[in-house]
Amino acid sequence: MPHLTIEYSSNLPAYPEAQALAELNAAVCASPEVLDEADVKSRFVRSGSFQVGTVPADRAFVHAQLRLLSGRSPEAKQDLAGRVAEVLRRLTPRPAGVMVQLSVEIVDMDRPSYVKERL
Amino acid sequence: MPHLTIEYSSNLPAYPEAQALAELNAAVCASPEVLDEADVKSRFVRSGSFQVGTVPADRAFVHAQLRLLSGRSPEAKQDLAGRVAEVLRRLTPRPAGVMVQLSVEIVDMDRPSYVKERL
Amino acid sequence: MPHLTIEYSSNLPAYPEAQALAELNAAVCASPEVLDEADVKSRFVRSGSFQVGTVPADRAFVHAQLRLLSGRSPEAKQDLAGRVAEVLRRLTPRPAGVMVQLSVEIVDMDRPSYVKERL
Repeated sequence: MPHLTIEYSSNLPAYPEAQALAELNAAVCASPEVLDEADVKSRFVRSGSFQVGTVPADRAFVHAQLRLLSGRSPEAKQDLAGRVAEVLRRLTPRPAGVMVQLSVEIVDMDRPSYVKERL
Repeated sequence: MPHLTIEYSSNLPAYPEAQALAELNAAVCASPEVLDEADVKSRFVRSGSFQVGTVPADRAFVHAQLRLLSGRSPEAKQDLAGRVAEVLRRLTPRPAGVMVQLSVEIVDMDRPSYVKERL
Repeated sequence: MPHLTIEYSSNLPAYPEAQALAELNAAVCASPEVLDEADVKSRFVRSGSFQVGTVPADRAFVHAQLRLLSGRSPEAKQDLAGRVAEVLRRLTPRPAGVMVQLSVEIVDMDRPSYVKERL
């Protein structure tokens, strides 16, 4: 069930998306919360129209959102956010002179109404 | 107010987006929860940078997120998720040899702070 | 921490994205809820595959989602939604014959599991 979406601003060129997807899925699947590796569905979104703050400055962001069925403990959520952050901290490009912000958000998905099938 | 977003991985070619949008909006508007058909705003997002799980395999996904103002009953949410799933189950391409995952998520939107206008 | 995403349908041509980003960030940063202007990360998403309602008609939408760490008062959320709406109401194109819907949604992000760093 986990859905992972990573957005980043387009002033982070040459983002190693394929490598990051492989490492993120491995890191998330290593959590005891994930029972079936095939459940982890991850994607990258590159944003070409963005602004960080109000001051003219070279600023970039990478933001990950991990959506899980509700019911995980606070500790499990913190652990999962940390796994995602570790990969992105390591693989996100850091262009000279650019301030790069990294954030990771965990979202609870409503369990009773969730539909999941293999077609 | 309902906002419907359907994401799918780009290894599902020739997705019939226009037909699906028409049928999804019809299915959602047929719910007693929707009072004005013009409120239903749906869009498709095609993801070209994705990975499902950790094992090399041909895997695809389609994921729908329906965002509603908070206050619906669990039964109403399940009904709406089922309406969305029925259309996507029927119209999602199933390429030979590809495992396709379908999921539908209902999200409550914070009602007191929601802004809605016609310009 | 605020993440602002503005989606609009592609039948709103020549959307002044850069101007809107500048004005939205200024408006959000003027809120007492935002302590550091560099925290506000905003982006535009243009949707080319969409449908509003079920009736053939020229309809467009612009939808903003502002994601904040949880714990804000209802009044603070309403104020922030109003700030975003004011800018979009003023800058969204209104093509002749097109019904344009504007909506603004405030989302609480789970605070204990949120990760935020500067790389």
